[in-house]
Amino acid sequence: MRRRVIKRFHPPGTTPGTLTPPVEGAAGPSRLSLFTYSPERLSEPPVAALSQVTALIPAGEQAWLRIVGHETSVLGELVSRFGVHPLVIEDVANVGQRPKVEQFDRYLFIVVDVLRFGTNGALGEQQVSLLLFENLLITVEEHESDLFKLVVERLRAQGGRMRQLAVDYLAYALVDAAVDYYFPTLEQIGEQIDVVEDVLLDKPDRRSFEELHRIKRDLLRIRKATWPLREAVGALVRTDSELLREGTKVWLRDVYDHTVQVIDIVETFREMTQELADLYLSSVSNRMNEVMKVLTVIATIFMPLTFIVGIYGMNFQHMPELAWVWGYPLVWVVMLLVAGGMVWMFRRRGWL
Amino acid sequence: MRRRVIKRFHPPGTTPGTLTPPVEGAAGPSRLSLFTYSPERLSEPPVAALSQVTALIPAGEQAWLRIVGHETSVLGELVSRFGVHPLVIEDVANVGQRPKVEQFDRYLFIVVDVLRFGTNGALGEQQVSLLLFENLLITVEEHESDLFKLVVERLRAQGGRMRQLAVDYLAYALVDAAVDYYFPTLEQIGEQIDVVEDVLLDKPDRRSFEELHRIKRDLLRIRKATWPLREAVGALVRTDSELLREGTKVWLRDVYDHTVQVIDIVETFREMTQELADLYLSSVSNRMNEVMKVLTVIATIFMPLTFIVGIYGMNFQHMPELAWVWGYPLVWVVMLLVAGGMVWMFRRRGWL
Amino acid sequence: MRRRVIKRFHPPGTTPGTLTPPVEGAAGPSRLSLFTYSPERLSEPPVAALSQVTALIPAGEQAWLRIVGHETSVLGELVSRFGVHPLVIEDVANVGQRPKVEQFDRYLFIVVDVLRFGTNGALGEQQVSLLLFENLLITVEEHESDLFKLVVERLRAQGGRMRQLAVDYLAYALVDAAVDYYFPTLEQIGEQIDVVEDVLLDKPDRRSFEELHRIKRDLLRIRKATWPLREAVGALVRTDSELLREGTKVWLRDVYDHTVQVIDIVETFREMTQELADLYLSSVSNRMNEVMKVLTVIATIFMPLTFIVGIYGMNFQHMPELAWVWGYPLVWVVMLLVAGGMVWMFRRRGWL
Amino acid sequence: MRRRVIKRFHPPGTTPGTLTPPVEGAAGPSRLSLFTYSPERLSEPPVAALSQVTALIPAGEQAWLRIVGHETSVLGELVSRFGVHPLVIEDVANVGQRPKVEQFDRYLFIVVDVLRFGTNGALGEQQVSLLLFENLLITVEEHESDLFKLVVERLRAQGGRMRQLAVDYLAYALVDAAVDYYFPTLEQIGEQIDVVEDVLLDKPDRRSFEELHRIKRDLLRIRKATWPLREAVGALVRTDSELLREGTKVWLRDVYDHTVQVIDIVETFREMTQELADLYLSSVSNRMNEVMKVLTVIATIFMPLTFIVGIYGMNFQHMPELAWVWGYPLVWVVMLLVAGGMVWMFRRRGWL
Amino acid sequence: MRRRVIKRFHPPGTTPGTLTPPVEGAAGPSRLSLFTYSPERLSEPPVAALSQVTALIPAGEQAWLRIVGHETSVLGELVSRFGVHPLVIEDVANVGQRPKVEQFDRYLFIVVDVLRFGTNGALGEQQVSLLLFENLLITVEEHESDLFKLVVERLRAQGGRMRQLAVDYLAYALVDAAVDYYFPTLEQIGEQIDVVEDVLLDKPDRRSFEELHRIKRDLLRIRKATWPLREAVGALVRTDSELLREGTKVWLRDVYDHTVQVIDIVETFREMTQELADLYLSSVSNRMNEVMKVLTVIATIFMPLTFIVGIYGMNFQHMPELAWVWGYPLVWVVMLLVAGGMVWMFRRRGWL
Repeated sequence: MRRRVIKRFHPPGTTPGTLTPPVEGAAGPSRLSLFTYSPERLSEPPVAALSQVTALIPAGEQAWLRIVGHETSVLGELVSRFGVHPLVIEDVANVGQRPKVEQFDRYLFIVVDVLRFGTNGALGEQQVSLLLFENLLITVEEHESDLFKLVVERLRAQGGRMRQLAVDYLAYALVDAAVDYYFPTLEQIGEQIDVVEDVLLDKPDRRSFEELHRIKRDLLRIRKATWPLREAVGALVRTDSELLREGTKVWLRDVYDHTVQVIDIVETFREMTQELADLYLSSVSNRMNEVMKVLTVIATIFMPLTFIVGIYGMNFQHMPELAWVWGYPLVWVVMLLVAGGMVWMFRRRGWL
Repeated sequence: MRRRVIKRFHPPGTTPGTLTPPVEGAAGPSRLSLFTYSPERLSEPPVAALSQVTALIPAGEQAWLRIVGHETSVLGELVSRFGVHPLVIEDVANVGQRPKVEQFDRYLFIVVDVLRFGTNGALGEQQVSLLLFENLLITVEEHESDLFKLVVERLRAQGGRMRQLAVDYLAYALVDAAVDYYFPTLEQIGEQIDVVEDVLLDKPDRRSFEELHRIKRDLLRIRKATWPLREAVGALVRTDSELLREGTKVWLRDVYDHTVQVIDIVETFREMTQELADLYLSSVSNRMNEVMKVLTVIATIFMPLTFIVGIYGMNFQHMPELAWVWGYPLVWVVMLLVAGGMVWMFRRRGWL
Repeated sequence: MRRRVIKRFHPPGTTPGTLTPPVEGAAGPSRLSLFTYSPERLSEPPVAALSQVTALIPAGEQAWLRIVGHETSVLGELVSRFGVHPLVIEDVANVGQRPKVEQFDRYLFIVVDVLRFGTNGALGEQQVSLLLFENLLITVEEHESDLFKLVVERLRAQGGRMRQLAVDYLAYALVDAAVDYYFPTLEQIGEQIDVVEDVLLDKPDRRSFEELHRIKRDLLRIRKATWPLREAVGALVRTDSELLREGTKVWLRDVYDHTVQVIDIVETFREMTQELADLYLSSVSNRMNEVMKVLTVIATIFMPLTFIVGIYGMNFQHMPELAWVWGYPLVWVVMLLVAGGMVWMFRRRGWL
Repeated sequence: MRRRVIKRFHPPGTTPGTLTPPVEGAAGPSRLSLFTYSPERLSEPPVAALSQVTALIPAGEQAWLRIVGHETSVLGELVSRFGVHPLVIEDVANVGQRPKVEQFDRYLFIVVDVLRFGTNGALGEQQVSLLLFENLLITVEEHESDLFKLVVERLRAQGGRMRQLAVDYLAYALVDAAVDYYFPTLEQIGEQIDVVEDVLLDKPDRRSFEELHRIKRDLLRIRKATWPLREAVGALVRTDSELLREGTKVWLRDVYDHTVQVIDIVETFREMTQELADLYLSSVSNRMNEVMKVLTVIATIFMPLTFIVGIYGMNFQHMPELAWVWGYPLVWVVMLLVAGGMVWMFRRRGWL
Repeated sequence: MRRRVIKRFHPPGTTPGTLTPPVEGAAGPSRLSLFTYSPERLSEPPVAALSQVTALIPAGEQAWLRIVGHETSVLGELVSRFGVHPLVIEDVANVGQRPKVEQFDRYLFIVVDVLRFGTNGALGEQQVSLLLFENLLITVEEHESDLFKLVVERLRAQGGRMRQLAVDYLAYALVDAAVDYYFPTLEQIGEQIDVVEDVLLDKPDRRSFEELHRIKRDLLRIRKATWPLREAVGALVRTDSELLREGTKVWLRDVYDHTVQVIDIVETFREMTQELADLYLSSVSNRMNEVMKVLTVIATIFMPLTFIVGIYGMNFQHMPELAWVWGYPLVWVVMLLVAGGMVWMFRRRGWL
């Protein structure tokens, strides 16, 4: 997790815009794919290198260049071929950025963060960077995934809204999908919270508390990602950039609404988990109370009795009681009275 | 409850505006009813399908179309027949939205959330969506209920203010009623808090603490609903939409006041419950203290005595005390002194 | 207290402005008194009904109509005779409002809340509503009290500032008095906190903690009343209404200052009480520690000793020690060594 | 301390501007001293009554009238002789005000609060009020002190900056000194925190916790004084009053910086003390754990042993073991095995 | 650490701008170094005194004067030779300032704070002050270090961006490096948190908790430094000073981004450590529970048994059981039943 709380960084003082990855082997090879489309047609020409891209886009068509993987040379070429600022490329490469929107003359730079539970049950994170040009959208993902499968399907479908509109709508659709991934993630967390609550109300144990600790950590990560996400999407809605058509903004307002809802849920869950932690601690105290009561009841009943039988275990030569015929039964009577008195007192105090 | 903390959602990447309910069977059939009224007359023509509505409204009259239930085809027709934006209909259908107000060219979209205790003692939630057109108000409720019974009665009453005014006043009356439902709900919670407090001050037990936990959860839900509600009503008051007449805004300011009061009460109750939780925890500690004191007093008195009687239970052949005539009485004197000293010490420490 | 945390309310959906009290018997009869004054003279004509008021006010004089009690018919007449908005009268009648200021064309509506300790030691609340017209001030109090005794005396006094100025200064004086009642109330709470602190530092007991709980509740109520009070007085200072002369605003700024000070004190007291609660909890833990140490010391000393004497209480036929002449004294030596070693260890650990 | 958390106040409803002190004997006699100065000369004419002051100031010179003590008649004369508003004088007399700045036509009214540790180790508070006129500065202190000794020395020194400039620079110098007193105060608190931390990390005891409680209270008082102080100095910096020359504002910005630093330190200290309180509570729990472990180890080892020796202390006539020659040694072996097994188990659990 | 929470200060009332260090020996000798550069050439002429500097800078070249150490006479000369305001120099000398930016006519004054873990594992702090003139940058560091080694290397490198641009870019590079030092520092803290978490989840001990306490203190210090840092860098970005070229601001926005990320991380870490502290406390309670259960189980099993064997250790002459042949075996049966019953009960309660 540490990798993701702190973004990747170079030694302080390094030239800004340096692309060589600070962690050895962090940048595998990139896979490029290109979609060019107009309302009537869509083509997905194979593309091996960034240098081919411009030539592959027919005039008047929209194009989506999808880069998966952070190969240094590929990202570097974005600077020279598309005029992207070196600091932007540094942010693309050094994952762990806050979600943000930056407006440049010829393009918008958007960073969003997707958090999903992986098949191993751990919360996985993927940074998605978008560069929105006039008729070209470049996206950079960290690694292969099914994140945008549905969006690609919608793009391939004849006659859908997506093909009618320009790449800014496509960018919206990708951001929308990225934000919407928080809902199933939070639903899973909600289910986990419910399970933990049931256990804590029924039979609190240490494992549930550690589970709660893990849930809180996950919520902390989601929170760290979603507050700036709201800011970023809000900035998109308010931006006066001509790269975003007015019609697209209606849709973005809906995404903004979703980010606000996500934050609401995260905060509600955080309060719930805090509440459950308090419940657990009170349970522990309660059980301790129970244990102590049992100990006290037992000790308080048997200590006086043991003392009494100890008395008549003494070997004094002059102990008149020992010779009485009714001595032994009398001791039993006394002991039963003592024990009964104790039990009566405990009952009155509600300890039994 | 989970259903309501997170709104209904489709798989990320789905086309926005998709109406098919994401949860199988979530959308039962809808029941439609129509009220058309002018100061002089009110009629409630039976209406079977949305397609009939426009024809049923006499010219120059106000109309209220009330839809109960989220039938997909009915909601879908709102888009084609009344020009409602698909995203709006998606928000109507996917319950669990934050209360909000959205302003469109021809209509205002208002979502409010009503939380009431049901007959089973659980907090039930119902989302009410309002679409306010020039002379037509469309409302969508989740299911049949008596929510707006009093409002309907006022509408049917001859000569009341409601018939004199246009549908925006009717919309106000519905929002006002929805907000006012929080008062009895909070009064019930206030009573529950009082009951729990009485128990915790008198004789704290685990059940009350779990009841407190439940109350806190309910407050969390109400809080999640009311903060955005205030925002939404505030937006209504400040809106420059011509669909809301200036006269209606005076009334809406009163509703805004109510939302602020509701939030005040919720926050006060949250502090009270937190305070009661602290009280409970301190009670548990106190009782533990009591239990431990009893144990300690008993053990501290009887352990030395048991030791003393043990001494004279030893079988050494050469123990001069055993032969003394006054040995036994002397041991009793010693033991009474020890026990008395202990009791005196405990009294001085205030443990008895 | 519940009555005051939640304002009085009607069933949701009731026509706004309904005056019949929602709680049976909540509205007793009202007592009216009228003061008309100019710099030179003051008269207090008896007044039996609202209908007489206008005729009783000499032209060019200032008038203060004081209504004590919420008689429905009297309050209702305020609408018809003085043109007060029905929602305003509803707020006057349904006590438990947030302090607020509302500006209408012909009058200002001001609600303030006074919290004082009653003779029974409980915190009593009274809502005071002011309607400030051009030359007429109408005030509505909940019940008879000595709240404004000093203000009335100043009004009756010949030559004071109050008679020279118009009713807006009188309104200021009433609001000022209402706000100033928080100082003695808070002073009493401060004294209570000091008493509790002394007890908690000296000899913490459960009763003090419950007293602290009560103080916290009182502070919560005062807080709930004073934050909106600050807002309301601030609104008065900033208002551009011509009903408040510029000269009066200098005085109102002073009242605003007082509300800020009250809030400062309330927040400081809240922190203090929280701090004392922590102190109490740590005291409980500490005393538990003390108790446990005593128990442990006693048990750790006497258990080994009891074991030793138990050994020589066994009845084996072949126990050589029993026959030794020095057996018994030797056992004493061993036991003294064991006990001494334990005491030495406890001393080193600082448990004694 | 109570006196200072709540400002002095009159009964609610008293005429504003009343000067008679609400607490009997709160106003001793005032001592007046006057400094008149120009770049070339400084004179300190003796002054017995306010009425002499105006005559004592040479034309074209700056003057500082220093009043120490709150004699009612002296303060009252400020109204008649210098045209000070009665509410201002009330604020001067009723100490316990929030630091503030109020701008009047002919003068600025500044209240600051100095908190210093007295020789008795308690935190003392003194309110300093400044009335800044065109060429006259009037200051009112509560009682004699060495607060402004260094400033007076600088004023007396020939050729210093202070004599060159007008009274607004002198006012700055006084406010600067008042603010700077927080640094040594906070340094002392920092040292106290360090001492407490060392004790709590090394050998936590109750006294340190009570010391921590006292530190927290002191911090609360300082906090209550410094937040409004920042506001007040900020208002001075931003004021457009001509009484403050532009050149003086550069210096005031430095004072503002200091108030911000003071608040930073106070907040940091508050977090530190909270942190230390948590540390203490965890220490108490830990020590309790230690105590309990000792008790449990001892009890768990000796209870079975005592039971075993008890068995062979029984007096049954038919107990074959008692007659065995090796019976007694065998019991020892069993007891050593039991004790050893317990010790081994405790070691494995890490309790020894 | 205390030195750094509170800035160095003089006695209250001292003339502002006093440079003599308030702490004896706090100001060692200063070392000066000078870099003059243009795109084509860089020279580093030796410089012994401030008086030589101006002469050493070739016309039209950029110059960086680096002062290491706070020698009073050197700092004082900055006032006379470069027209720096005395308050600025006071802030340079009295380390422990909040990071800030102050804009003067001829220069910008920037204070930043670097926090790094030293070789001794303790968090070291260094204040770096920058004075940015038109073509001259003066920096003052507290002591020799490798802070800006990489920046110096970049400056020395032929053809890099730094030589092309003016000193404002150099100032940016230094601030950027200073800010970037927080990333490795926080990464180390993140690793420490992970270590502590692993220990606390596995086998909580007191030492880890004290380690956590230390981490929290470090975070508190970093927090105290970074919030104002963000403000300061934000002010740099928004400033309209001509000393910062528009091109440089793009880079500064990147630094601002970094400060926001640093604060995000610090806040996340603070929540994590708080969470871990709760986890520790719950662990302590849990272990106490375990210990108590062992004690209770042992006591509850052996106390009744010891009582039973005590009975038959009594010496009454008339105890029929003692004479029974099956008496002894019967007692064993009873005792086994009692012990078995206890074990069964504990198992059912889940205490074993």
